[in-house]
Amino acid sequence: MASITKLTLCLVFFLLLSFPLTLSSPLHLRSSKNAPRFLADFSRTINNSRPLKYSKYRYETRYFDQILDHFSFSDLPTFRQRYLINTEHWVGSGQLGPIFLYCGNEGDIEWFAVNTGFVWEIAARFGAMIIFPEHRYYGESMPYGSREEAYKNVTTLAHLTAEQALADYAVLITELKRNLSAQACPVVLFGGSYGGMLAAWMRLKYPHIAIGALASSAPVLQFEDIVPPEIFYDIVSNDFRRESVDCFNTIKKSWNVIASEGEKNDGLLRLTRTFRFCKKLETADDLSNWLSSAYSYLAMGNYPYPSDFLMPMPGNPIKEVCRRIDSCPDGTGILQRIFEGVSVYYNYTGTVDCFDLDDDPHGMTSGWDWQACSEMIMPFASSKNTSMFPAYDYNYTSEEELCLENFHVKPRPTWITTEFGGHVRKFCSSFKMFFYSPD
Amino acid sequence: MASITKLTLCLVFFLLLSFPLTLSSPLHLRSSKNAPRFLADFSRTINNSRPLKYSKYRYETRYFDQILDHFSFSDLPTFRQRYLINTEHWVGSGQLGPIFLYCGNEGDIEWFAVNTGFVWEIAARFGAMIIFPEHRYYGESMPYGSREEAYKNVTTLAHLTAEQALADYAVLITELKRNLSAQACPVVLFGGSYGGMLAAWMRLKYPHIAIGALASSAPVLQFEDIVPPEIFYDIVSNDFRRESVDCFNTIKKSWNVIASEGEKNDGLLRLTRTFRFCKKLETADDLSNWLSSAYSYLAMGNYPYPSDFLMPMPGNPIKEVCRRIDSCPDGTGILQRIFEGVSVYYNYTGTVDCFDLDDDPHGMTSGWDWQACSEMIMPFASSKNTSMFPAYDYNYTSEEELCLENFHVKPRPTWITTEFGGHVRKFCSSFKMFFYSPD
Repeated sequence: MASITKLTLCLVFFLLLSFPLTLSSPLHLRSSKNAPRFLADFSRTINNSRPLKYSKYRYETRYFDQILDHFSFSDLPTFRQRYLINTEHWVGSGQLGPIFLYCGNEGDIEWFAVNTGFVWEIAARFGAMIIFPEHRYYGESMPYGSREEAYKNVTTLAHLTAEQALADYAVLITELKRNLSAQACPVVLFGGSYGGMLAAWMRLKYPHIAIGALASSAPVLQFEDIVPPEIFYDIVSNDFRRESVDCFNTIKKSWNVIASEGEKNDGLLRLTRTFRFCKKLETADDLSNWLSSAYSYLAMGNYPYPSDFLMPMPGNPIKEVCRRIDSCPDGTGILQRIFEGVSVYYNYTGTVDCFDLDDDPHGMTSGWDWQACSEMIMPFASSKNTSMFPAYDYNYTSEEELCLENFHVKPRPTWITTEFGGHVRKFCSSFKMFFYSPD
Repeated sequence: MASITKLTLCLVFFLLLSFPLTLSSPLHLRSSKNAPRFLADFSRTINNSRPLKYSKYRYETRYFDQILDHFSFSDLPTFRQRYLINTEHWVGSGQLGPIFLYCGNEGDIEWFAVNTGFVWEIAARFGAMIIFPEHRYYGESMPYGSREEAYKNVTTLAHLTAEQALADYAVLITELKRNLSAQACPVVLFGGSYGGMLAAWMRLKYPHIAIGALASSAPVLQFEDIVPPEIFYDIVSNDFRRESVDCFNTIKKSWNVIASEGEKNDGLLRLTRTFRFCKKLETADDLSNWLSSAYSYLAMGNYPYPSDFLMPMPGNPIKEVCRRIDSCPDGTGILQRIFEGVSVYYNYTGTVDCFDLDDDPHGMTSGWDWQACSEMIMPFASSKNTSMFPAYDYNYTSEEELCLENFHVKPRPTWITTEFGGHVRKFCSSFKMFFYSPD
């Protein structure tokens, strides 16, 4: 037992890079036509449709007056940051009880709280306090009093950045510890997906505040030229290929079938019927995007157990998708197979009569779209050879144009690596200095 | 030789805390009635009065378009950041030649460049490039096109912060290295006084950019309750006491003599004559402040060799001050002794006929006054017992009022320690966690 505890803690303390654990917050990515969209598609679920199973974890909801711009002294209004807190297992400041802080990501914090079982499960063992601060501009933590005002224009959105969010967490935890006379209690960070990036970056930028971070599924290297832009879709594709090469090939072939069907007389109508959309498809591309999105999210939520984080899904959902695609009777067409497969994602409960496409795929629907157009410039591409997705190249210029058009913001594509690093340089040079001496 | 080189480098690489070396940038502090003012009193010397000895060090002056707000996406104009560069000793990117970067502080960068001999002296030995970027809002590096516009109001001054300055340096050096294909070349930071704080903080915040920092005379611990607020004036006082206890006592007694003289008929006139002011003193306090300021700067510039960094001074100037105070003929009054002593600072060259007091001691004369009213909230006090300066307590409330009045800015007294740390907590707690296990 002791050695397991130690091992776990070693992981907790020293894991700083992306690491695909089965924490409940998987990798999702971003807007624009082809790139995946992180958790943006789900970030507003809480107050709308599906209810949460709140009963499982208990927490108190509190609010903290937060400065909008930590790094400048512009005369701006403060905003109310929401945070969830649980102290039932905390052994207190006297015993230096640790504080587990989950770095809220791009969505309602309650959604992340109830889907991050790991933190709740280990808290008792460590006598830890749990705190889930919400990310600014998401959920209830809206500057300028309302979501509408906060998302009004480039000026009001200006302070939706990762650096400001990290400073929020730093200020909040420092103040909370002061109030509890708990300054000496160690803080350990947690986070998944974008929240995992925040956890890793916070450990880097605030080492005096956090003694460790568990950054799960955190694509901290998905910037500039650090990794090949094809890597995300290659990994997703491999998740399918390793279940079944036939499945992979069926999906890979389907894009052309969809495109050519779409060009035929009444093709869009037939596609609409085959895939049971409520309204007639306007383009075949809309269907392809709807499918691509499902495959990405299936990979992000490919847990070995049933989950309801993104959509209700069985355990090992990709295995189930491929089973359905492959097990259709001989002679079943590709499109029918694809429909059977993707239903695992869009209709696992079997309760959906017809499907709706996203109503506003290019609008300012989520804060993540803003973030992806300002500092979170993550190049994505899909390889003609190794990916099962439609092939496309990364084109920074067109991304930039889209951002200027949609948000009137000019992206800063090299900022994240300047601020947080990521490039691994060979620093033999630093040792060379010891020996370089022309005297 | 080799071992000395190694030792020097160990210092260069691993010194991260305040360390009083004889780098040419000593400690100065800040505005308000009693607190010392860092280098603010000298920050505009360059373009005004005393010419620099430019001939000694050679550099090229360049400019870089810098983003005004790195941490938000407000639509603000860029500004031209000045930097000085010398590549004559650089062995080039092929040989991974190091880059020595001096973190410009609160003044004209040329002034710091010509007064930081250490960096110039070691560059050849290390085959290093030297770069001196100027701090935003100082010298020629003015946002909004001019000093007048930049210093107009709280909105234009808002982006004069240490975090933004560090980001300027990070962006500049990253871009410069990219242009030179020198990404793998190690960067070592240097800085003195506030610039030393920046060097230490930059090493902390940008470890992927800088492999080491030499932070000289950097009061990174002069915040909140980390050190006693009396420490600065105690150290200055001890510099005098260790030269001569008589000298220390003469200075300590002088304040009451000045005050009571000021209350007498024609007392201010007599003080004006004794201290050779050009215009009649308005209060005795003005004289006391003029003297206090000199004693602080004498300590800050107490180099063992003659210098002209702050004012023309002999080597070991405090020793000389005390020699003059102590060696007056028996029966010489305290005020005459004080005048003889302080002349080492204000008139070492003997060319001054009469002295002028600072014309605008409380106005918005320097960016440092702004910084000291926004985030650089450094508590100073003078102890009744251990300091030779007039006793005074630290009173945050009155400091805050002054800042609201002068700059319409509310100080953030806990921000610097939240952002950069400083409190040393006992983190036994982190180890305790390994063993706490109620299971």
